[in-house]
Amino acid sequence: MSLLLQKCNWRFGLSSLRVVTKQQTPLAKHTRFCRLKSQLAVVPARWGTKKTFRKVKLQVALDMTDPNIESELAPLRASVKEQGDLVRKLKADGAPEFDVKKAVVELKLRKKLLEDKELSLVPDSQVFDKSRMEDLLKRRFFFDQSFAIYGGITGQYDFGPMGCAFKTNLLNAWRSFFVLEEQMLEVDCSILTPEPVLKASGHVERFADLMVKDIKNGECFRLDHLIKGHLEKLCADKKVNQEVKKQCEDIIIKLDGMGKAEMDAILKKYDIKSPITGNDLTEPIEFNLMFGTQIGPTGLIKGFLRPETAQGIFVNFKRLLEFNQEKLPFAAAQIGNSFRNEISPRSGLIRVREFTMAEIEHFCDPSDKSHPKFESLKDTTLFLYSACNQMDGKSAEYMQIGKAVESGLVANETLGYFMARIQKFLVKVGVDPKKLRFRQHMGNEMAHYACDCWDAECLTSYGWVECVGCADRSAYDLTQHTKATGVKLVAEKKLSHPKTVNVCKTVPNRASIGKTFRKEAKLIIDALAALEENEIDTLEKNLNEIGEYELKISNDTYKITKDMVTVDRSQKTVHVEFFVPSVVEPSFGIGRIMYAVFEHNFKTRDGDEQRRYFTLPPIVAPLKCSILPLSGNAEFIPFIKQLSQGLTRVDVSHKVDDSSGSIGRRYSRTDEIAIPFGITIDFDTLKVPHSVTLRERDSMNQVRINMEELPNIVRDLSLGKILWSDVQSKYPKFEQQESTEA
Amino acid sequence: MSLLLQKCNWRFGLSSLRVVTKQQTPLAKHTRFCRLKSQLAVVPARWGTKKTFRKVKLQVALDMTDPNIESELAPLRASVKEQGDLVRKLKADGAPEFDVKKAVVELKLRKKLLEDKELSLVPDSQVFDKSRMEDLLKRRFFFDQSFAIYGGITGQYDFGPMGCAFKTNLLNAWRSFFVLEEQMLEVDCSILTPEPVLKASGHVERFADLMVKDIKNGECFRLDHLIKGHLEKLCADKKVNQEVKKQCEDIIIKLDGMGKAEMDAILKKYDIKSPITGNDLTEPIEFNLMFGTQIGPTGLIKGFLRPETAQGIFVNFKRLLEFNQEKLPFAAAQIGNSFRNEISPRSGLIRVREFTMAEIEHFCDPSDKSHPKFESLKDTTLFLYSACNQMDGKSAEYMQIGKAVESGLVANETLGYFMARIQKFLVKVGVDPKKLRFRQHMGNEMAHYACDCWDAECLTSYGWVECVGCADRSAYDLTQHTKATGVKLVAEKKLSHPKTVNVCKTVPNRASIGKTFRKEAKLIIDALAALEENEIDTLEKNLNEIGEYELKISNDTYKITKDMVTVDRSQKTVHVEFFVPSVVEPSFGIGRIMYAVFEHNFKTRDGDEQRRYFTLPPIVAPLKCSILPLSGNAEFIPFIKQLSQGLTRVDVSHKVDDSSGSIGRRYSRTDEIAIPFGITIDFDTLKVPHSVTLRERDSMNQVRINMEELPNIVRDLSLGKILWSDVQSKYPKFEQQESTEA
Repeated sequence: MSLLLQKCNWRFGLSSLRVVTKQQTPLAKHTRFCRLKSQLAVVPARWGTKKTFRKVKLQVALDMTDPNIESELAPLRASVKEQGDLVRKLKADGAPEFDVKKAVVELKLRKKLLEDKELSLVPDSQVFDKSRMEDLLKRRFFFDQSFAIYGGITGQYDFGPMGCAFKTNLLNAWRSFFVLEEQMLEVDCSILTPEPVLKASGHVERFADLMVKDIKNGECFRLDHLIKGHLEKLCADKKVNQEVKKQCEDIIIKLDGMGKAEMDAILKKYDIKSPITGNDLTEPIEFNLMFGTQIGPTGLIKGFLRPETAQGIFVNFKRLLEFNQEKLPFAAAQIGNSFRNEISPRSGLIRVREFTMAEIEHFCDPSDKSHPKFESLKDTTLFLYSACNQMDGKSAEYMQIGKAVESGLVANETLGYFMARIQKFLVKVGVDPKKLRFRQHMGNEMAHYACDCWDAECLTSYGWVECVGCADRSAYDLTQHTKATGVKLVAEKKLSHPKTVNVCKTVPNRASIGKTFRKEAKLIIDALAALEENEIDTLEKNLNEIGEYELKISNDTYKITKDMVTVDRSQKTVHVEFFVPSVVEPSFGIGRIMYAVFEHNFKTRDGDEQRRYFTLPPIVAPLKCSILPLSGNAEFIPFIKQLSQGLTRVDVSHKVDDSSGSIGRRYSRTDEIAIPFGITIDFDTLKVPHSVTLRERDSMNQVRINMEELPNIVRDLSLGKILWSDVQSKYPKFEQQESTEA
Repeated sequence: MSLLLQKCNWRFGLSSLRVVTKQQTPLAKHTRFCRLKSQLAVVPARWGTKKTFRKVKLQVALDMTDPNIESELAPLRASVKEQGDLVRKLKADGAPEFDVKKAVVELKLRKKLLEDKELSLVPDSQVFDKSRMEDLLKRRFFFDQSFAIYGGITGQYDFGPMGCAFKTNLLNAWRSFFVLEEQMLEVDCSILTPEPVLKASGHVERFADLMVKDIKNGECFRLDHLIKGHLEKLCADKKVNQEVKKQCEDIIIKLDGMGKAEMDAILKKYDIKSPITGNDLTEPIEFNLMFGTQIGPTGLIKGFLRPETAQGIFVNFKRLLEFNQEKLPFAAAQIGNSFRNEISPRSGLIRVREFTMAEIEHFCDPSDKSHPKFESLKDTTLFLYSACNQMDGKSAEYMQIGKAVESGLVANETLGYFMARIQKFLVKVGVDPKKLRFRQHMGNEMAHYACDCWDAECLTSYGWVECVGCADRSAYDLTQHTKATGVKLVAEKKLSHPKTVNVCKTVPNRASIGKTFRKEAKLIIDALAALEENEIDTLEKNLNEIGEYELKISNDTYKITKDMVTVDRSQKTVHVEFFVPSVVEPSFGIGRIMYAVFEHNFKTRDGDEQRRYFTLPPIVAPLKCSILPLSGNAEFIPFIKQLSQGLTRVDVSHKVDDSSGSIGRRYSRTDEIAIPFGITIDFDTLKVPHSVTLRERDSMNQVRINMEELPNIVRDLSLGKILWSDVQSKYPKFEQQESTEA
């Protein structure tokens, strides 16, 4: 996952999330920015412990052809557009930065009003019973808080058997869909990362939040959010005079760019205390969100748990390029855990301290970002929420990706190709396509080096949640690691015409360097070889004039003397040129996708509020099949065994439930854990040819099938190679068994 | 992986490994204890950087019917047996601990002499070219040192595309073989673990080594190994007198049980310096092998990266038991990364700082360790190296696991069942069965609570390496976590006859407790409910006499007053009893298994030393198939595409190599990365019906097959559903194509 994509707004870290919760009255709603809340809240969140069932409304694409809806939204849209136009004009006129910032804050406010209105217009049939879902997830141990018997830690979850199997299936589907189908180079890199790597990537310096602590109880608050919350309260206070309010508004606008000293001054000026206890607060402290540790016993090698998996791929770029026989483009991929020491994590699986990511880094020639397979997907329709539409107060729009690239809305084919693939994947694993959109980063939230960035967002009870980021990151990371190590992370390409160039290179005296620098000799020789032409000029000058040259590698300086190196100058004809590849990066937050899939697939049986189930697609369902003998009759046992072995033979995960309880009750239990297919062994099974019933979870329809055929059918259904409708058309519908217990 | 299994000898941490390296002369050999070496060595190991190819001899089961071999070994065997008998006698006689320890040291020495001799008798045909294998693994990026462009860190490796795919396939095979086939409950728990959990498990206190540092360069040495090395040197020195030698021997024997002060005294008495620089050393420092960090921003929650995955399962025991509908036995499993801050890791993948484990915790009734599926495996023959044989100087012996359990050699059916399953799995994924043995822990290396423990060891160039541990760990872990949390981690079973028991229980006044302790109320109520009868007696007494009771939970004390709790005493008839389940734990070191599989499958083509390849079984091979067009002829392109799509459709990972270079050369490249099947598109392919050749890596035989049939055949071969011999008998052998380029 990319660093610096949003200036102070980390992906998977700081997206503004919205949630609408309804308590009792369907109209009462409460909209909030989760991040802000989560930073300010105190009591450790115990996920899912509340048994009061809140109902939550989910927005789906509104029916915009409904004139009533449009008429309600029209004035708000106009208001956003007016402000968007103002921002554009200010920028075009080169207005002072302060004025632009202020206008952007107002634009965001208006956008929020519009989105709130949209959410309020969603019909009541979309009401979603969040707490009952959480209760089910916890009760059937899909996942739950880690170390709960020790009181637990916020932001950490353990996946139980069902959650773990779902996650495994999701990751296998990802690997099959991306790595195998696209023949990507998958790697598995170290989690513990030495400091210099993360210095180069920018994480050590910039992956930090300012915070203050309650001096009595040590509770921590993120400083910018604390100030913002305090000043917003002042602005909302009728007793506060207009001049003070004006001041507060100005500060809020400037907060983003403020340093430690400035924020500290505001803290003192407004005498801000803990909003929870009213206690005094400490001086601001810079809190890096990475978990630090020491590698090795000396305590001298500082390391961090990686905050993203991407860096492991970048530092292996040379090996990967070589593995790919020096050819571009190619994509590398990695699935693995990353860690972020959130100040106060909330929101269940959405914001956690350790999480699984699946990242792709597609390396290509910056001058050619076409994609050979783009043609095959260009008709795919995506729900695109362009930066422009965001500025204009318009909704997201359905558009074919081919058109989007052609019109320049999406920067290039490679980016567009991945966006279409991401959508295809998400829908395949259970994301509701009606609750999926691609939101483009606006100019002011995109890092300076990125050309374009689109987030795949899923609509959940937490609002639109970024689940996959897809960015064109240009050559930033490879350039940074080259700077830090002196190792050139470049690719080469053939020139259309050979050209003659001046060459100067250093010729090391290995013996002399080895004698002086011993085991660091290789490092120095590499660094000398990596010097640019102007640096070699300086080297030569210094060696001639003062007899030595100071070679800098990372933070160390090495004294190079005349006996160690000579400079060789010549001309040569070159047929290739070197360049730093561009990177297009799709980055998947696995826990967030899982959570969205849970929400999108949580259902209640018509007419029976107590029977809840998950409609997870068979390909990701934790178990594919249940085997339920109608009763404890001993004659059923050999059939259970035979079926179980048959399913195991074709790798179909399944569960035998031979407990007492009616078939209906047992099916209900298997529905809860999303088992898509169920086999019942009944008294007709005992007759030759032996047959059983096969039931599909969502329709609850059943057919009767011969036992020998069954394992392969269930396997093909589970892999999505055949559909339930195929099975229904081929086998007789089951109504009730003919035989009963003797 | 279990803690405390060997008193000071961590599994995967401290097993004594042996390596025999041959340089030039086949007879020169050097045997060492790797751990010792690794602790004392200085220069950071750069894995595989040496290009001088050492050849290493591997021991396989010696042919014991050869009278020459047996006559050479006989005296050494007798010597071991003599000492083993002495140890037994001393123990039986209740001799002083010191005498027993001394005799055990001598026993180990004699065992080592015997094993060295055995190794030296292995025929030369077993010579293995280790450095060439390492070179290949590095060159084709199976794995390599992490962060190499930054100089790298020892004990950390990145898996490249081929290593990563092999690892993924190995883990999927493990999951299918154990989790799915045995219907285990797989979980996925947090890596970051708060301190109290690891205090309870014993890791905080005992998972530490004493070390000293070179005061000038900060280099670290493990203290016991440093002392041992120094004193052994003295003992070997002819100039040292007998009395001093005697003292040294005594110290070496006692070292195991010595504390910090005693070792420090020895350090001073013998004036031990750094063996590398001769510099002075610091005072002894306790160095815990866990990576520490802080969770959350306050710096108050101390945490560690888990040193094993097992604890995540134990703390979830209640949820898992509930998930399993309160029934025993059941097994839980987890695949994940663990971390150990080794003082000075060496030996490539064998000893690393972060590693993937796959662990199973099988929970069962301590009074019934039978296994329902044991019968089906009882005829499996294992190569068992019993503690008794180790004491007697005998070799490992082949024995059926049924016999081993029946005779009491292996403690119970469940342990025996897993041993047989472990062997079946290891062989399936490529371990050479001739280089696999199960070594029983001897009484003195097994933790006090374990009943029996067998390590599956693979013979590699590092000696016999423990790859899987399989231990009956009794009720230790669950008991420890119950003690620490007050949460009873127990199961219940029906009594054959109901019985009447006295019951006393605490009845909490929730309102009163809630008012005083707020969010800790639940913790306190749970702890009160968990009090034992004698503790309730004390509680009642204290409340009556002094009006309060100090309730201890972990390290905190809570004052309980009379208004908060009453004691209820009664009699009741019980039909069930509660017990703490026993745990049988098979624990797999994935990196070690991978390494053993690499060594066991590294081959050279007869008559061509330059052509090296890996005979990895198709099920774990990184890629299953290659597609090689005979030449760059444009007519081949649609066939390449069609085959590639066909293979993708049936989930067969493959690689198209359309580079120039002869077919032979390209096959050679695919052999290097262990691709088991290769398809050639030649000019006969252009004819209708279109056909291609299919080649098998190990035999290099080829057959001719119609294109439409091919994807399913390769899939079935890859999954091991059909064998190459089946294919060979069905399809015509390919000798050479009929058509050539027009």
